Amino acid sequence: MAQADVAIIMGSQSDWPTMKHAADTLAELGISFEARIVSAHRTPDRMYEFAKGAKAEGFKVIIAGAGGAAHLPGMTAALTPLPVFGVPVESRALSGEDSLLSIVQMPGGIPVGTLAIGKAGATNAALLAGAVLALNNSDVEEALETYRAERTAAVAEFPVDDTN
Amino acid sequence: MAQADVAIIMGSQSDWPTMKHAADTLAELGISFEARIVSAHRTPDRMYEFAKGAKAEGFKVIIAGAGGAAHLPGMTAALTPLPVFGVPVESRALSGEDSLLSIVQMPGGIPVGTLAIGKAGATNAALLAGAVLALNNSDVEEALETYRAERTAAVAEFPVDDTN
Amino acid sequence: MAQADVAIIMGSQSDWPTMKHAADTLAELGISFEARIVSAHRTPDRMYEFAKGAKAEGFKVIIAGAGGAAHLPGMTAALTPLPVFGVPVESRALSGEDSLLSIVQMPGGIPVGTLAIGKAGATNAALLAGAVLALNNSDVEEALETYRAERTAAVAEFPVDDTN
Amino acid sequence: MAQADVAIIMGSQSDWPTMKHAADTLAELGISFEARIVSAHRTPDRMYEFAKGAKAEGFKVIIAGAGGAAHLPGMTAALTPLPVFGVPVESRALSGEDSLLSIVQMPGGIPVGTLAIGKAGATNAALLAGAVLALNNSDVEEALETYRAERTAAVAEFPVDDTN
Amino acid sequence: MAQADVAIIMGSQSDWPTMKHAADTLAELGISFEARIVSAHRTPDRMYEFAKGAKAEGFKVIIAGAGGAAHLPGMTAALTPLPVFGVPVESRALSGEDSLLSIVQMPGGIPVGTLAIGKAGATNAALLAGAVLALNNSDVEEALETYRAERTAAVAEFPVDDTN
Amino acid sequence: MAQADVAIIMGSQSDWPTMKHAADTLAELGISFEARIVSAHRTPDRMYEFAKGAKAEGFKVIIAGAGGAAHLPGMTAALTPLPVFGVPVESRALSGEDSLLSIVQMPGGIPVGTLAIGKAGATNAALLAGAVLALNNSDVEEALETYRAERTAAVAEFPVDDTN
Amino acid sequence: MAQADVAIIMGSQSDWPTMKHAADTLAELGISFEARIVSAHRTPDRMYEFAKGAKAEGFKVIIAGAGGAAHLPGMTAALTPLPVFGVPVESRALSGEDSLLSIVQMPGGIPVGTLAIGKAGATNAALLAGAVLALNNSDVEEALETYRAERTAAVAEFPVDDTN
Amino acid sequence: MAQADVAIIMGSQSDWPTMKHAADTLAELGISFEARIVSAHRTPDRMYEFAKGAKAEGFKVIIAGAGGAAHLPGMTAALTPLPVFGVPVESRALSGEDSLLSIVQMPGGIPVGTLAIGKAGATNAALLAGAVLALNNSDVEEALETYRAERTAAVAEFPVDDTN
Repeated sequence: MAQADVAIIMGSQSDWPTMKHAADTLAELGISFEARIVSAHRTPDRMYEFAKGAKAEGFKVIIAGAGGAAHLPGMTAALTPLPVFGVPVESRALSGEDSLLSIVQMPGGIPVGTLAIGKAGATNAALLAGAVLALNNSDVEEALETYRAERTAAVAEFPVDDTN
Repeated sequence: MAQADVAIIMGSQSDWPTMKHAADTLAELGISFEARIVSAHRTPDRMYEFAKGAKAEGFKVIIAGAGGAAHLPGMTAALTPLPVFGVPVESRALSGEDSLLSIVQMPGGIPVGTLAIGKAGATNAALLAGAVLALNNSDVEEALETYRAERTAAVAEFPVDDTN
Repeated sequence: MAQADVAIIMGSQSDWPTMKHAADTLAELGISFEARIVSAHRTPDRMYEFAKGAKAEGFKVIIAGAGGAAHLPGMTAALTPLPVFGVPVESRALSGEDSLLSIVQMPGGIPVGTLAIGKAGATNAALLAGAVLALNNSDVEEALETYRAERTAAVAEFPVDDTN
Repeated sequence: MAQADVAIIMGSQSDWPTMKHAADTLAELGISFEARIVSAHRTPDRMYEFAKGAKAEGFKVIIAGAGGAAHLPGMTAALTPLPVFGVPVESRALSGEDSLLSIVQMPGGIPVGTLAIGKAGATNAALLAGAVLALNNSDVEEALETYRAERTAAVAEFPVDDTN
Repeated sequence: MAQADVAIIMGSQSDWPTMKHAADTLAELGISFEARIVSAHRTPDRMYEFAKGAKAEGFKVIIAGAGGAAHLPGMTAALTPLPVFGVPVESRALSGEDSLLSIVQMPGGIPVGTLAIGKAGATNAALLAGAVLALNNSDVEEALETYRAERTAAVAEFPVDDTN
Repeated sequence: MAQADVAIIMGSQSDWPTMKHAADTLAELGISFEARIVSAHRTPDRMYEFAKGAKAEGFKVIIAGAGGAAHLPGMTAALTPLPVFGVPVESRALSGEDSLLSIVQMPGGIPVGTLAIGKAGATNAALLAGAVLALNNSDVEEALETYRAERTAAVAEFPVDDTN
Repeated sequence: MAQADVAIIMGSQSDWPTMKHAADTLAELGISFEARIVSAHRTPDRMYEFAKGAKAEGFKVIIAGAGGAAHLPGMTAALTPLPVFGVPVESRALSGEDSLLSIVQMPGGIPVGTLAIGKAGATNAALLAGAVLALNNSDVEEALETYRAERTAAVAEFPVDDTN
Repeated sequence: MAQADVAIIMGSQSDWPTMKHAADTLAELGISFEARIVSAHRTPDRMYEFAKGAKAEGFKVIIAGAGGAAHLPGMTAALTPLPVFGVPVESRALSGEDSLLSIVQMPGGIPVGTLAIGKAGATNAALLAGAVLALNNSDVEEALETYRAERTAAVAEFPVDDTN
């Protein structure tokens, strides 16, 4: 049984610079997680095994990042009852528009809660996982409040001319 | 204190034919919900009040549908710690591409878990809300299992030529 | 062992009006085929079983049609060494642009030969399967020659004003 | 009561390199302004307070710049009777197409006069604010005439080959 | 000297079903206006004469609607110091995406405040013109307040199931 | 030797309802033309023969219409020194965006003067052919002047409310 | 009376690095030309004067390049009976998609023969102008033949591995 | 009679850095191939000759790469009964979206199996050619199995933080 509440999976090592922002945010919120490379296309068996076993492993939320014809989030969602949040990784030619549509346009029956393309989406997938866990975890609830309060407080009132 | 676990909000009466699929799916799963019209643009005060009070009202998940420059899901997410799932409603000229981008491309810090454009997205928002609630509610957990098993069983093995 | 050379698979009964054109074309070419509904999202186990066993069943080419976040062609390709040709089915909101990108933008390592959106693509998937089989089947080779010659001959030289 | 006629607001410090062009242009026209960071998502209360009070503060025109799921211009417009001009800031992945659609595709009832993506749009928001103020301010009227005359005069008749 | 405060111009008679919503909204606000057909492409001389003389005619704001390669708003803006608001009319093949980009992507120096594609944009152009005029006209100011209050009040709290 | 100055070619009978507008416009201008079906894909030999012989046949301008992966205009341009004007025919799924890009994005060396998608483009291809021929044909020159003067005169000054 | 057959006009000095390729190609073909900066937006009077007088000046073909909301080619076409070829200059945010649509999507009645975005389009505008002039100028006809023959001959038969 | 099973053709020397990945992959699979430059636009005769003779030369599969208005794959497919796989080469302005649509949107009757934009597509075209050849070549069948097994084995289980 895993100790981790959240699984971060990604299709390729090259997705890590993006998905690392999900990991960093979960760490900041004090949420336990594991990050694994699970490629829908190159390691479909590993994906099947992971997705089918994720609930039994003790995970509560899955964050899945992928680019291009991004099938990992949707296929994982088809194989687990856990909530799956998808992060479109920016692709080379089409800037992640292909990743976004491949993740978000799921047919009725199998949902993937999709976040923004790239770093912001990875950060937000972690925050959304946090919001889900906070429903039954007051530590995470407080950590999220603190996280948001700090970000709100960090917004300066006036822009500084840093372009010179 | 609300009895309902899920709030379905939408920007306009005209979004109801889409969002009704979220309501129908929640009802099928036995999840309590309330559906309200809360326009970010025409009733910003109502939106503020709703979003700021949603947690205290007892809601656990918010499903927000909107079209065009769809600000309702993102603004609600900015005002509540609850998980918010966004449904892009198909728009007249741009077929919901504007709705999709306005909902999904949130900046780091304020997540909206975005579903597909239109009816499939509304259905899936309900299923995703169900997956979240099922983490601590075995009735919903079972209802989701049944829902999915029925859909899987309903997939015929061979296509029937119904085009003649 | 299947008698059929080509498997036509599709994600949903609703894809059949499109994919039927693949079936009709294969029939016209005298190529044996089977059409099955195999949903990546609603019947992932059936998909696994089908894709992993397709070669052993005796299929030589797989034609896979799907719409929206279309994962069937790519996932099938990940699970079989057979050539897979993908047909993007026209989607409601985004006219098949989502289907096209979800099918064609596969990562290096797992190819899906992608055809045009909709009916033309379904017809062409059958013709491409025919071209592959014709490499070692002179009956199909001749049938394809006939097919193309007839289409060429059917192109009138002058447009007829049938708009009045 | 503010001395400034125009408020320039933006969602983030990172929008300043773009929005600075609005400030510079207003300064050149001799129009008083204030630039503030007001994030719809991170500081929704500040936004509410600002937008609801902008008219009472004495502002006559609001210029709002934002990127991605850009909600600031539209939400401000929902909360003030003042004319609001929106500047889509270029976004990383989608080059500002998301910003543009999120700002311009407002529903009937709440207008945002939207300018071009990026620097040109920021400059033009200032010029449009100037054109509005010039209706009752002959100093601004003259400044705009001068501004345009200078730009017209600065257009050389023949291109100079500066590529060598 | 014109009695009308607002000129509504459009490239073609076929734009009237869209632009009529601007006229109806101005009428509801009690703002005087004139609607004229001024085609940048078919009547460039009329356009030049109109745009150069609009201020002297007494107009204070120009609303310009056009579709496809929509040059009317931008060319008018190049020829008048008055504020120009542009309405992209929905085009046949590209749904108004061409109209939108042709109007909004003006170069620095010549602003067009652009509204949404189609009917919503036409209505909002009138409201934005109203917001500009209201800066110095308390009757319009009050009419806008009433307009908005009525729309806010008209938003029902609960969706009615009118889909059966 | 052909008597006709302009060849109208199209990829399919189904393009005729669009390309007929080119024919009608040429007829109105008194320009001789021939309309032929020449499919780049189904009758490549006919296309080669036509394009290579068009100049010798006496044609001066070629108008080529095609849809989808529209190769006819560009391939014709590659095979003739005559000016080729391309008309993107509206396609089913992608509304002619594919036709437009396939025609206009020619590499340096082989130009196709591309017109708008659909009927307007077909009409304009004829007018552009007329403008070319008018350089050395005063009858066409006068016919074009008349054509344009009539269209200018036909622009009403005020829109008529024909929406009731 | 101009000695030049072709006018190359562009909206801004910044378009010259692109439009220079038109000039270079015309020079290579031995076609006389003049290059001028004529901004539709910043120098509308210069544009009017130029376009209305271009035929009387002796020009036979106009090549017009512009970016963003590119009105120069279409407005010039509205003011001259000469054939106008448009070159979409690559724009910063939208890569020239806005330029392309603003130029090519002209309404029926006023044609602009549009070339590819950027350098290839500028080169091709010159070649298309050459093809038009060659109809009555055997020097240009021969120059074009030579140009094309040289380019054809320059195509190597085998790629050289120059990536190491 | 060629010794090579696969022909790799491309429109330009500049496509080689992309198409080289097809060559490298075929080499790794032990499949014989020839790479040639065959431009549809600059060398249409060479293309005709090549495509019409490719089968007689002994080729079994053709891989064709091209960018922009990419006509080479489709025209080749129109002239040969062999299976043709198309690779959209990334274009400068539109990132290969034009290349993709020009290749994939073929009309019913002439199929091109289209791969992803750029390097991944070139690699996959080779793998797809391999899958076709493997149907009757056990050496290629084994080489493909090895290729895929190696790639699967190369997928690490955990991401390594290589961003520091």
